[in-house]
This record gives sequence, structure tokens and C-alpha cells, in this order.
Amino acid sequence: MAKYNIAVIPGDGTGPEVTREAVKVAKAAAEKFGFELALTEYDFGATRYLKTGETLSDESLEELGGYDSILLGAIGDPKVAPGILEKGVLLKARFGLDQYINLRPVKLYPGVSCPITGKGPDEIDYTVVRENVGGLYTGTGGFTMKGTQHEVAVQSCVYSRYQVERCLRYAFEYARKYGKKARGKGENNTLALVGKTNVLTYVFDLWERAFNEIGDADYPDVKREYYHVDAVCLYMIQSPEMFDVMVTSNMFGDIVTDLGAITQGGLGIAAGGNINPEGVSMFEPIGGTAPSFTGQNVINPLAAICSGAMMLRSLGEDEAATAIEDAVKWGTANKFKSMAAGEMGYGTDEVGDMIAAKVSE
Amino acid sequence: MAKYNIAVIPGDGTGPEVTREAVKVAKAAAEKFGFELALTEYDFGATRYLKTGETLSDESLEELGGYDSILLGAIGDPKVAPGILEKGVLLKARFGLDQYINLRPVKLYPGVSCPITGKGPDEIDYTVVRENVGGLYTGTGGFTMKGTQHEVAVQSCVYSRYQVERCLRYAFEYARKYGKKARGKGENNTLALVGKTNVLTYVFDLWERAFNEIGDADYPDVKREYYHVDAVCLYMIQSPEMFDVMVTSNMFGDIVTDLGAITQGGLGIAAGGNINPEGVSMFEPIGGTAPSFTGQNVINPLAAICSGAMMLRSLGEDEAATAIEDAVKWGTANKFKSMAAGEMGYGTDEVGDMIAAKVSE
Ligand SMILES: CC(C)[C@H](C(=O)O)[C@@H](O)C(=O)O
Ligand SMILES: CC(C)[C@H](C(=O)O)[C@@H](O)C(=O)O
Repeated sequence: MAKYNIAVIPGDGTGPEVTREAVKVAKAAAEKFGFELALTEYDFGATRYLKTGETLSDESLEELGGYDSILLGAIGDPKVAPGILEKGVLLKARFGLDQYINLRPVKLYPGVSCPITGKGPDEIDYTVVRENVGGLYTGTGGFTMKGTQHEVAVQSCVYSRYQVERCLRYAFEYARKYGKKARGKGENNTLALVGKTNVLTYVFDLWERAFNEIGDADYPDVKREYYHVDAVCLYMIQSPEMFDVMVTSNMFGDIVTDLGAITQGGLGIAAGGNINPEGVSMFEPIGGTAPSFTGQNVINPLAAICSGAMMLRSLGEDEAATAIEDAVKWGTANKFKSMAAGEMGYGTDEVGDMIAAKVSE
Repeated sequence: MAKYNIAVIPGDGTGPEVTREAVKVAKAAAEKFGFELALTEYDFGATRYLKTGETLSDESLEELGGYDSILLGAIGDPKVAPGILEKGVLLKARFGLDQYINLRPVKLYPGVSCPITGKGPDEIDYTVVRENVGGLYTGTGGFTMKGTQHEVAVQSCVYSRYQVERCLRYAFEYARKYGKKARGKGENNTLALVGKTNVLTYVFDLWERAFNEIGDADYPDVKREYYHVDAVCLYMIQSPEMFDVMVTSNMFGDIVTDLGAITQGGLGIAAGGNINPEGVSMFEPIGGTAPSFTGQNVINPLAAICSGAMMLRSLGEDEAATAIEDAVKWGTANKFKSMAAGEMGYGTDEVGDMIAAKVSE
């Protein structure tokens, strides 16, 4: 029987509540499909930081790198200044474990209400591949004459061919394997590069050249498109059905995936994965710690549960992943009134129980 | 009688068609409200570039700087590589005339259908103040080992305190003068800074410090808020009513204003201004050249007409500007079936005629 060692970081706020349900459901799937999950919990996050001043040490990072996968709830606390926990824990893990892909499906599940008039599950069904360890997120830059009237601040977007290429290759492979044609939903598997070639003429020139070269050489079967990031945001609302797989830089990916999340029903249902295809990946709901809902058993755990499914898929447990996703679809179509906290019609734990029971059926 | 010298750049594609109507309406307003518009046309854009290789020369730029204002249609052509006309004409004018503010009202007019369920003119009614000559748009950066597997591309976001401060002061003044309280629509005039302080810890640290210092010192009456750019995109769909005046960097402003445009009914109705408060400004619809609709008399000229109204307001002709805006509202509420090209129920010229006639009443 396959056994997977998983590090679990419940984190802050509602993180522990949603992680508990994700674990419950993943365990039900393990039992059903005959594999074992060995879980080890870590308390990285605001509580530990406020107590000890520690975010994520190099030793802890190395320890995390020894697991088969990582499941994360959410990290952050109003009591901690912005940037400290983001950079100290979340980005440190993404960068330190070289999780160079952030994979975010934008999928409207049946029964989930979409804020855009006239769009349903057939129209909102695509995936964003976000580069996850480079670009504007590298922290490259600085100040001169800080605090004076002559201050200048610089923040640089840095990309190497190597970084861009491995991200593009992942995206092309993904489009070939899971694109619309592969899923029987269209004539082509299409990969759209999202950039700003008309203004960011260095960085997106590199992206565009690599995109076309790699596509021509190794993925002639994948249809290529290009969109400016501003236009993409407009199209994501106007005609989301035009998208299949998108690939973009770290910062643009951050923006378009939050926009995508609201079109798929909000943060309660939006899952994501920080992926190192050759190493250790980390799965997390897109939403944050939701301090105002903490401890009330009202937060929606579906995004965390779906992140758990993504984790199982990355471990090769496709059947288990599909079973969880199908159970979530059954729940959104038949049971849950809304994706918003406090409006599901059930408590956080009940939602987890129902999905786990469905998976076990 | 006041007389204003206006440079008109109709540009490419549908640019000339929409500019013709904007001029028609502005002239009707001039006649009605007793001022004179002396118009001089310039042919900058793709046609000239393809014929002569010229984009916007330094001499032409200086000439443009001698006008009271500039009205622009749209520039671009599929036959010209991306970046050339954008950098050569549009950005050259913005930068060369130091139009450091890009002002974009996000206003849903009555009768215009909004793609977001349950949102109407009361909910979608805010303004984005975008910094317009700095940040990632400066072209700072370059390549190393271009074209090799070791290539690195860098693109830098550069902001000085001076640049940030003058933009913030404009935004605070705008919020004080046109915010929700000033318009009798709320308890406060609110200015929201949109950034990414948790990741872009240099540039947005500068923005945030300046925002708080200037606000505390000179605008204690303006309520301040801060949002991360990714969250803002989500909120612009989920609860646009929370916004009053937003201020942000050039790149983030580019993104959020296209998103804003779709929520207000699309590019057919979205107007904007490139403003140098101490110099010469340039007004343009947000939309592009729409090649597929060129020459068919079907493109929606309302965005260009509203840009003309913004121009008149910037010249101090508030009554004329308001009359045009009221006429457009009358048209959207009573006459035009849709904001989409070919679906208005009238030709481009008829729409201009109707608005001009209403202004003249
Ligand atoms: C918390 C923050 C650093 C993070 C990011 O910007 O990547 C978040 O917005 C996300 O998208 O996962
Ligand atoms: C055409 C392009 C250079 C321009 C920009 O990015 O500013 C456009 O998108 C806009 O928003 O006016």
C-alpha cells in the first residue's frame, strides 16, 4: 500500500478549520482508494511568530523538503505587519522549495452562483499557470535617499530564459494533457500567453520569444494565443469561454487568479497548488485567514478540500482526486446554498463530513 | 468669447469615426455655451508611420505642447509590430507632455447593461487615478546574453517621491472635490491606495508612506483606505459600491481600468484623460482601433464623446461638459439598445447627431 508523508501547516485564522476538513476528506479518499496518508502538523504562522519571532527557519524549510507533499491552510494575522509572514513563511516556502508553478483552475462548479450574468460551468472552465518564484516577486530593488523628498524606489522584474522556459514547458504539457481538446470540449488544446509586450518590451519579449520557439519546436499540436494583461481582465468577465490554459508571470498571475476566483464563486471554492514538478509541492486555498469568521464554524472549507484533491492528483492518486472533485460537485449542485461564509446552510465541519461521506460511498 | 486651440489626432482604424462624432458634439456644446473651438488635425498613427516611418517627432511633440488640449481617437494597426506606435506616439505624448495623471471614471450610465449580476448605476460609480508617466512604463531595463539559453531580462518599476507625491496630491484633491461626500452620495470622501505592499516592499512602501504623510498633513478630511491589487480586482466584481476614488501605479492602473471599463458596459462607453494639471492634457477613449469594425459606421462613439466632455471640463467649461454627459445619459437610458459595436440600433454618425442635438436643446 502506497504511503505518503504529508506536512500539514494549518496556519492562522480560519486556516485550521478548513485544513481539518481537507484532511478529513483526503483521509476518506485514502481509505477508499487504498493508500495511506501519514500527517505531521507544523505550527508556522502568526501564533508562532508572535510567540518566538520565528517565521520559517532554514532548518524547518529543509525538513519540509523531506515530505512527499505539503498542505497549507492560510497564513497571516492583523497583528503582524504586512510582508513579514508572507515573505517569511509563504514565499519562503515557495522559493525555498523551488515551487516554480502556481496552478490555479478557474472552474465554476454546478450550482455555484456566478457573479457574471449569463455565464455558467460551460463558460468558466480554464486554468491559469502562474510562474511562481521569479519576476517582481524576487525582492530585487531598493531605495535611494529613503525618507527624503529625493527618495527613489526601484523594484525589478527579473526573468531568466531558464525560469521562463521551464514554466512554459510545464504549461504546454498541461495544455496538451488537460486542454479543451484533451477533455473533449473543443477542437484545440490552447495555451494563451498573458503579458504586456507593448510596454514591458524586455521581459515580455523574452517570454514571447521563448513561447514561440518552444511551441514551434516541441508543441506544434498546442494552439498558441497572446493577450495583453489588461485585455485579459476584460475578457475574463466578457467572454471567459474563450480561455483554455493561460500562462503568465508571477505578478500578473497573482492578479488574474484573484479575478478568476471571483468568477468561479469566490474564495470559498478557489483552490491552488504551488508546484515543483521535480520536487515537493504545496497546496493551499487561494483565500486568506478570514479573521472575522475565525472559530465560528462558518467558513467554507471547499477550497481547502479541492486543494487536497489537487495534492492527491500530484501524488499520482488520480482516482482519489477525481472522487473528491465529484463529491464537491455533487455538494455544490445539490446541497450547499452559497459559497459565502455563514451562508452554506451547514457548518464547516458538516460540509467536510458530507463530502467525506460521499467520497466513501 | 473664450477660444480654445485643440489638436485633434483621429488616428487609426475606427479612431477617425469616433473622433468625428466627439468633435461634432463638442462643437455643439461650444455653440450652446458660448465658446469657440479652433481645431487642427494631425495624422499621427499607423498610416503616417507606414508611409514615412515617422511616429511622433520631437518637433511635432513641441507643436502639440502649444495647444490648449488634445483629442485623440485611437492608434495602432495590425500591420505594425506591437510597441512601435504605442511607444512612438501614445506613450511619447504622455511622457513628453508630462501628462502624469490618467483619469478614468468607472461609471455605469442608466440603461447600460452591466455584466455583473445585481449591480446598477448606484453601485458602479467611482474613479481611478492612475499614475501615467512612471513605474514599469519608464522602459528601464534590458537584456543580458539575449537570444541564448543564459539570457536574463530585467524590467524595472521606478518611482521617485516627487512623482508619487504629485500623483497622490492630485488624487486627494480629486477625492475632496468629487468624492462621494462632495457629490452627496456618502458620508466620506474616500481615497483608496491600490498596491502590493506585502510583495513589492520597496516601491509600494514609498507609495504608502507618502500616502499617509500627505493625507495626515494636508487631507485629514479625506478617508484613507489601502487594498492589494489582486484583492481590488476581486472586489471590483463582488462589491464595486465600496469604491470612491482609487489611486495606483501606472501598470496596476492599466489593469484595473480595463476591468473597470467592462463593468461600466465595455470599451464603447469608457472615457479617459491623460492629464498634466499644469500643462497640456490629452483625452482619449480607452478602447483601441477595432480593425474589424473600421469604416462600417457601427462603432460606438460614446466613449470618444465622453472623452470630449472630460476635455471641456479640464478647460474650465463645466457646464458644457455636464450637458454632454447628461445628453449621453439620456441616450443610454432612452435610445441606444446596446453599447456593443453594431448593436446600438443606430449608426455611429446618428449617435453623434442625436447627442449633439440633445446638447443644443
Ligand atoms: C499573500 C501573497 C504574498 C500571495 C501572493 O501575492 O502570491 C497571495 O496573494 C497569493 O496569490 O497566493
Ligand atoms: C496601448 C497601451 C500602451 C496603453 C497602456 O498600457 O497604457 C493602453 O492599454 C491604455 O491603457 O491606454
